[in-house]
Amino acid sequence: MEAIENIFTRKSVRNFKNIPVEKDKIRKILSAGMSGPSCVNARDWSFLVITNKEKLSKMADANGRYARHLKKAAFGILVCGDLERAYSEAEDYWVIDGAIAAQNMILCAHALGIGSVWLGTWPQMDRVKNQAELFSLPDHIVPHSVIAFGYPEEEKPEEDRDLYEEDRVHFEEW
Amino acid sequence: MEAIENIFTRKSVRNFKNIPVEKDKIRKILSAGMSGPSCVNARDWSFLVITNKEKLSKMADANGRYARHLKKAAFGILVCGDLERAYSEAEDYWVIDGAIAAQNMILCAHALGIGSVWLGTWPQMDRVKNQAELFSLPDHIVPHSVIAFGYPEEEKPEEDRDLYEEDRVHFEEW
Repeated sequence: MEAIENIFTRKSVRNFKNIPVEKDKIRKILSAGMSGPSCVNARDWSFLVITNKEKLSKMADANGRYARHLKKAAFGILVCGDLERAYSEAEDYWVIDGAIAAQNMILCAHALGIGSVWLGTWPQMDRVKNQAELFSLPDHIVPHSVIAFGYPEEEKPEEDRDLYEEDRVHFEEW
Repeated sequence: MEAIENIFTRKSVRNFKNIPVEKDKIRKILSAGMSGPSCVNARDWSFLVITNKEKLSKMADANGRYARHLKKAAFGILVCGDLERAYSEAEDYWVIDGAIAAQNMILCAHALGIGSVWLGTWPQMDRVKNQAELFSLPDHIVPHSVIAFGYPEEEKPEEDRDLYEEDRVHFEEW
């Protein structure tokens, strides 16, 4: 798909076909996540990939009721910040760097015909704690976001939406 | 450009040609920023677009020495969080939503042949304060990131880089 069309046709997909996603596509998606910019090129993230249905179900339960779509996903990725790699002068850039990686993965998936939905974790600290406990993460690895991926159940015709809102933009001065 | 190639060939561009970027392209970039997902679809961001050279220079000075490349940019965007629109149960999702919008704009710009470099602001609170003061932002509008945009000075051949690192990915368990 053409790059701009890909950005403008992305939508959250919550219903997935009961088929797996090919390993090489999962790798491509992860590689896209690692291709975004990060603060001082710290690359302060790590990714936990889950395809096991039982684990996906536990991961969903650990992330609140809106995460239930994860149970039918082909795979889920827990994007994590890696505080040992974060920029020591301003550690919290890890939140931005994780979001860049996640959005790159979502756009790459969409280009491969794979739908996804972003299931928020950080800054909801109960979810952060739940995911960390579920996967016995080391202390320096902080759950950022859960993303569910899979082939979309219905292939809806994609519209090229223009979500521009005039009043959100200020030119030259506020 | 093809969507996946676009993701993998993006690089930070720090030297810009001394020519403006067309208004319709700036609008397209902003629209891409508004096309990403946001927490509970809060769309909790706003964008301040600067093309005036004097203002770009002040904006650069307000953001630390690594922001100097902004002085030669065709335009800069101050991505801001809008706390009045943020999800009240977990306001800090605004940080993630701003990053998604910024990465979408950077990828859209790259697809249009426009280079960019991300100049961090939040969480460095001196920079956040400087930008807010410079542009007399309302209290609920919080500076997130400054991004410099422009046509690249040198058109380097783009390589399709694979930045995948095996040890950053964990399958099924940590």
